[in-house]
Amino acid sequence: MGLVVQKYGGSSVADAEGIKRVAKRIVEAKKNGNQVVVVVSAMGDTTDELIDLAEQVSPMPAGREFDMLLTAGERISMALLAMAIKNLGHEAQSFTGSQAGVITDSVHNKARIIDVTPGRIRDSLDKGNIAIVAGFQGVSADKKDITTLGRGGSDTTAVALAAALDAEVCEIYTDVDGVFTADPRVVKKAKKIDWISFEDMLELAASGSKILLHRCVEYARRYNIPIHVRSSFSGLQGTWVSSEPIEQGDKKVEQAIISGVAHDTSEAKITVVGVPDKPGEAAAIFRTIADAEINIDMVVQNVSAASTGLTDISFTLPKTEGRKAIDALEKNRPGIGFDSLRYDDQIGKISLVGAGMKTNPGVTASFFEALSDAGVNIELISTSEIRISVVTRKDDVPEAVRAVHTAFGLDSDTDEAVVYGGTGR
Amino acid sequence: MGLVVQKYGGSSVADAEGIKRVAKRIVEAKKNGNQVVVVVSAMGDTTDELIDLAEQVSPMPAGREFDMLLTAGERISMALLAMAIKNLGHEAQSFTGSQAGVITDSVHNKARIIDVTPGRIRDSLDKGNIAIVAGFQGVSADKKDITTLGRGGSDTTAVALAAALDAEVCEIYTDVDGVFTADPRVVKKAKKIDWISFEDMLELAASGSKILLHRCVEYARRYNIPIHVRSSFSGLQGTWVSSEPIEQGDKKVEQAIISGVAHDTSEAKITVVGVPDKPGEAAAIFRTIADAEINIDMVVQNVSAASTGLTDISFTLPKTEGRKAIDALEKNRPGIGFDSLRYDDQIGKISLVGAGMKTNPGVTASFFEALSDAGVNIELISTSEIRISVVTRKDDVPEAVRAVHTAFGLDSDTDEAVVYGGTGR
Repeated sequence: MGLVVQKYGGSSVADAEGIKRVAKRIVEAKKNGNQVVVVVSAMGDTTDELIDLAEQVSPMPAGREFDMLLTAGERISMALLAMAIKNLGHEAQSFTGSQAGVITDSVHNKARIIDVTPGRIRDSLDKGNIAIVAGFQGVSADKKDITTLGRGGSDTTAVALAAALDAEVCEIYTDVDGVFTADPRVVKKAKKIDWISFEDMLELAASGSKILLHRCVEYARRYNIPIHVRSSFSGLQGTWVSSEPIEQGDKKVEQAIISGVAHDTSEAKITVVGVPDKPGEAAAIFRTIADAEINIDMVVQNVSAASTGLTDISFTLPKTEGRKAIDALEKNRPGIGFDSLRYDDQIGKISLVGAGMKTNPGVTASFFEALSDAGVNIELISTSEIRISVVTRKDDVPEAVRAVHTAFGLDSDTDEAVVYGGTGR
Repeated sequence: MGLVVQKYGGSSVADAEGIKRVAKRIVEAKKNGNQVVVVVSAMGDTTDELIDLAEQVSPMPAGREFDMLLTAGERISMALLAMAIKNLGHEAQSFTGSQAGVITDSVHNKARIIDVTPGRIRDSLDKGNIAIVAGFQGVSADKKDITTLGRGGSDTTAVALAAALDAEVCEIYTDVDGVFTADPRVVKKAKKIDWISFEDMLELAASGSKILLHRCVEYARRYNIPIHVRSSFSGLQGTWVSSEPIEQGDKKVEQAIISGVAHDTSEAKITVVGVPDKPGEAAAIFRTIADAEINIDMVVQNVSAASTGLTDISFTLPKTEGRKAIDALEKNRPGIGFDSLRYDDQIGKISLVGAGMKTNPGVTASFFEALSDAGVNIELISTSEIRISVVTRKDDVPEAVRAVHTAFGLDSDTDEAVVYGGTGR
């Protein structure tokens, strides 16, 4: 008998009908002889409604109270889900993050899990129950206050519980059929990926793919927990994310040369113009940015023009951090020494990801040729061992993604991708 | 510096505006130099909406999960209230029943408080915070599961915390100006009572007055915690419930001979007809009722008709228990031995309450005269040391209450009673 952790997002439990549908699926897993732990998000728009209420009451809600407020959402969905399962004749018990032993640090609104002590979950399973656990929440180790894990937190809860309970698999149920070779809303011919390695999935997540958050995949890799991303609507096999290729029927899934194409239009570019070309200048700039607690992505330094002794340094960062970065740099302008700042939020990033590119030297050339043929101009380039990323104009992104997807033979024969609803947390 | 516990019902915090209004009132109490603990119910209709969701999912929601579901309501209101207070520049922290140390037995949906260990509340107060506590909920001593206290549970939470923290007063904020000499919806000339003893308040609560539940007053009397029932809308002085009369300005409030008139139309009457008039018969009837876990109110046995050796026994009980009582008696008919059962749910009870009637022998006579003058027929009579109750036809109740209220000089010179909204829990 195996132990399975399943996670259902907000769109899967948006109303009473959704809860009843999910309850049936959970009972199926139990009937198949598994011990089942279910992590559930808040119903549909509940979280947005609670945030709206908070904004009506206070323009700057305090972190501790905001977390207390938001966690009410999972308390509702998990209790209803347990009731729905009992109504099908099976025993279920719901547990808050605190009751499930999800211990975090004290950073409200984006806490990190530091330990999982699932004693009550284990007891409940041993008594034959299905255990329902509130996603997205925990309790702080030092103050015993309720915390939330930030965006995508329920996925992290599921993987962390799967690791602590030594589960066979962590099933992430969502509103699409799995991980696709590109965003199906942009590329109609995107294909569902049957299997992808942790490493490629991490690069896709870092490059703008939203289906699994980087933090969740990182956690699964560290504890070697296979993730199965699949639809709560269709019942089809989804995408396996694991260290080794899976067997499907009698065929073994092969490692693809290229896993997929990701894109990201949430970043902006800052160019620091007229920086003296001498040691310590780049360090001064990025120390300023780091002190402002801003994470940056790509960095490029232009070749110095020998005649002036000045150079330009460009970097990308989330648009939401743009204002803060500009302010920090302006404030430190005397210390750094530069002429001016340029801010550009009309950029997009396209990334090609695949471990196969390590051993296929033509990949980079083919990538640039595809972009060139599509008339897309490249502004910045950055690479890792298994990824190439370029920055282009934002308006060029959809065309560029489709061109690269076709060039690497990723197109499906049919328009197969189906999107069922919104996204959970 | 004193310690004040305040409780706000659902109608006081029905929306963001209500929460902000209540926050101001709380901050006033803090500014007056008090340590302030606030117990809050779920916002307006939240609880009904959650119950509705549960019914959509399961016709018979399990107690443990139902409690988990319902307690989300207070989690929302208390977090919003803490935010609203912080927005006014004061520090506030919210606590679930469990965090506040409200320990109960394991009877879901109607748990009883067995201990209060408010260590975290005390710490929070000592740091200068206002502490906001979820009403209506606790955590079970043995299983550490979330429990709820049943109807009126938030009032009980408030009184229990006031006792555990040795508060100077427990202020119960509601949508009327206090306890009235009769239900203002029935008697336009009902007067607000300035002070009432615990004993009289207990009798009123037992006789159908809904403003404070019997359980809550009983708790306050046991620990001698003065309750101040007042409006969250008007800011006026309300009704003090305590062991000794209070001083108001330079006048000492006197003990009234009669505190008020209560009525109750939620009961039914069962008459067991043709019971053998021999020892043990009444015992057999009421053992049957007790074994069915039904609480009864009044009991009357008619004088036996000597010729037949048979008698009738009547008792009243909540209408909601009527079916169950009839079934239990029918099932035990062979053992008890009676001719037939009569069920009557068209009855009402009118009660006159006041410690003064102990030393004023004319009260009973005046009470019956008033009813007689109003043409109201009396069906059953029951008395305690400080209460007289009669059962009449349900349709006669409003007229009877007004007649008695006038006869005992309780009428106000003006129609002063104001009702502001619904009722909380």
